[in-house]
Amino acid sequence: MMKISSSAEATFLEQVFAKYDFSKEDSALLADTLVDADLRGISSHGIQRLAWYLNMIKEHIIEPKNKPIILKETPTSLLIDANQNMGHIASALAMKSLIEKTKKSVISVAVIRNSNHFGTAGYYSRMAAEAGLIGISNTNTRPLVVPTNSKDAFLGSNAFAFTFPADPHPFVFDGATSVVSGGKIQLLAKKGEQIPGEWAIDGDRGVVKDANAAEDILSKVAFTEEQPGGGVLTLGGNSEENSNYKGFGNSLVVELLTGILAQGSISADTNTGKHDFSQFFMAIDPSFFGDLEVLKGNVESMFDRIRNLDKLPGTQIMIPGDREYKRYDENKAHGVSIDDTTTKQLQDIATELNIQSPAAL
Amino acid sequence: MMKISSSAEATFLEQVFAKYDFSKEDSALLADTLVDADLRGISSHGIQRLAWYLNMIKEHIIEPKNKPIILKETPTSLLIDANQNMGHIASALAMKSLIEKTKKSVISVAVIRNSNHFGTAGYYSRMAAEAGLIGISNTNTRPLVVPTNSKDAFLGSNAFAFTFPADPHPFVFDGATSVVSGGKIQLLAKKGEQIPGEWAIDGDRGVVKDANAAEDILSKVAFTEEQPGGGVLTLGGNSEENSNYKGFGNSLVVELLTGILAQGSISADTNTGKHDFSQFFMAIDPSFFGDLEVLKGNVESMFDRIRNLDKLPGTQIMIPGDREYKRYDENKAHGVSIDDTTTKQLQDIATELNIQSPAAL
Repeated sequence: MMKISSSAEATFLEQVFAKYDFSKEDSALLADTLVDADLRGISSHGIQRLAWYLNMIKEHIIEPKNKPIILKETPTSLLIDANQNMGHIASALAMKSLIEKTKKSVISVAVIRNSNHFGTAGYYSRMAAEAGLIGISNTNTRPLVVPTNSKDAFLGSNAFAFTFPADPHPFVFDGATSVVSGGKIQLLAKKGEQIPGEWAIDGDRGVVKDANAAEDILSKVAFTEEQPGGGVLTLGGNSEENSNYKGFGNSLVVELLTGILAQGSISADTNTGKHDFSQFFMAIDPSFFGDLEVLKGNVESMFDRIRNLDKLPGTQIMIPGDREYKRYDENKAHGVSIDDTTTKQLQDIATELNIQSPAAL
Repeated sequence: MMKISSSAEATFLEQVFAKYDFSKEDSALLADTLVDADLRGISSHGIQRLAWYLNMIKEHIIEPKNKPIILKETPTSLLIDANQNMGHIASALAMKSLIEKTKKSVISVAVIRNSNHFGTAGYYSRMAAEAGLIGISNTNTRPLVVPTNSKDAFLGSNAFAFTFPADPHPFVFDGATSVVSGGKIQLLAKKGEQIPGEWAIDGDRGVVKDANAAEDILSKVAFTEEQPGGGVLTLGGNSEENSNYKGFGNSLVVELLTGILAQGSISADTNTGKHDFSQFFMAIDPSFFGDLEVLKGNVESMFDRIRNLDKLPGTQIMIPGDREYKRYDENKAHGVSIDDTTTKQLQDIATELNIQSPAAL
């Protein structure tokens, strides 16, 4: 484990992406999305993804020189072809445009097809929040998630991010629609730990507690033709009696708004070959409905009442976003943590490209 | 238990609402929303609510002669004051307008304040689906739902409905964002049954299995100043380890889009006095992104693949909407079921208004 400053991380990443033929502007954006994830403590979506991205470039799954193509556009809507470049690039383009459109039209919507992984969903909806707007961001993913009563993974972990302007920071609800993301299981597997709850099942819908066993299932169902059965559960757990069909419904909503609406691949068809993910974005101007400062005050007052509810001893009530903004400030001041595997990967990448790897703090 | 034909139910309801000073058009709409819920097997939102609605009229919580007021309007947006009439009236007005707006502008949004209960969320999003559009419908409710780690109810069961055009019927995902609705617990309490899963907790976050004990908690937290603690859990159950903070986040999203955006009451403040609920609606035109028939074909093909996945013995994989459309056809043919308490209430209402109560089949 080492710590590096977020500015050193950004400088290094910009150099790497530039060497891999991304434009200066795209390199800066990609670096910012990864640094932003690390600062927020979402390290599963930070610099540890770099080697994976670079491999996909080498395999021509990602094409760094391609520019996104706007296929259709109206004052309230956009259909974009990401042109097989990083999902981040078309997504930031889409949200920038939606912010302009929404300030004129109260609401607007964008769909992206032919895309790749786009980092954290929250990055784009936070762009809207910073402009005083409500932001929504969705992506489909590789197939990991098992529908209610099914033995086989079919749905993606299908991220959903929703932001609402508030002080001292926006409300940011950002994560997989499934009970957990695949990355959370991967993290426990790396540490050799047990899964604490009902997160993953085997091919007979038996709950899998060993994170390595679960990770073994996920690596097959999400990335290969081999389908042993099992995968990640929908929110609501293994049994219908805790309404896991509601988690199933939430995952399907994202599938419909992404792969279906974009006419890209559905998650089930992305386990081999190119990613071909699709993304969905929306922005709404709350100031049409009321004065923005009044609305923000009402939000803050509601959140404070929730934080101060009577609670279980030794616990806190955290509003979505609280934790990541706290970590952001800490990591900005004290640096972001890089695990040993990633440290080694960064050194290899630096050597290959003849640049300096980021210095430990 | 008796069965009545849905047409007899509609005729009776139209007469009742007309006697209570609703306009002919509003009476027909209100009757249709209740009959529709009964036909779909959502009896918690059907004719069994009639006595409750009529009581609220007598108490001037609902004002039948008031007309909704459009406070602000653009080609893509609406802000409506329901003027303390039934939520159904302003909601149907909003969705009718959004359908027109969305056919011209790809997307549009409406918010309603100063409203009451609006029936099933799905009624309005299905209006969009029938017009070939994606529909979204939300409402906040009385406070029932306990945030992660909290001992006290604060959030509403906060309904979310999402529809997407498909054949032979649209995708309809419609329900409380909490693990279950209050109505589901009420139903078990009436039958004296145990709660099968983690649905409700007491003031120490202990899971309550006795439906009558749970119902007793809910009737206090949702309708009185008395706050014994406890309530309905968020989707994800009692413990953080199964990601109940995701269910909490989903509930908060609805709270932000309704009570906050409308500048009405938040759910926490509706336990006494007038309802003052708020509603949020949206419609999106999928045909901007692709040919509607192609999209519908892709949806149906995805759903068929899901339905045919390897499954647990003795189970089915149901797509949201499947169950309610099946019940709709059955109940249309064979009549809707009315429980004994409701049958008695309908007879009393008929006597009071000097009209015929619906005849048993």
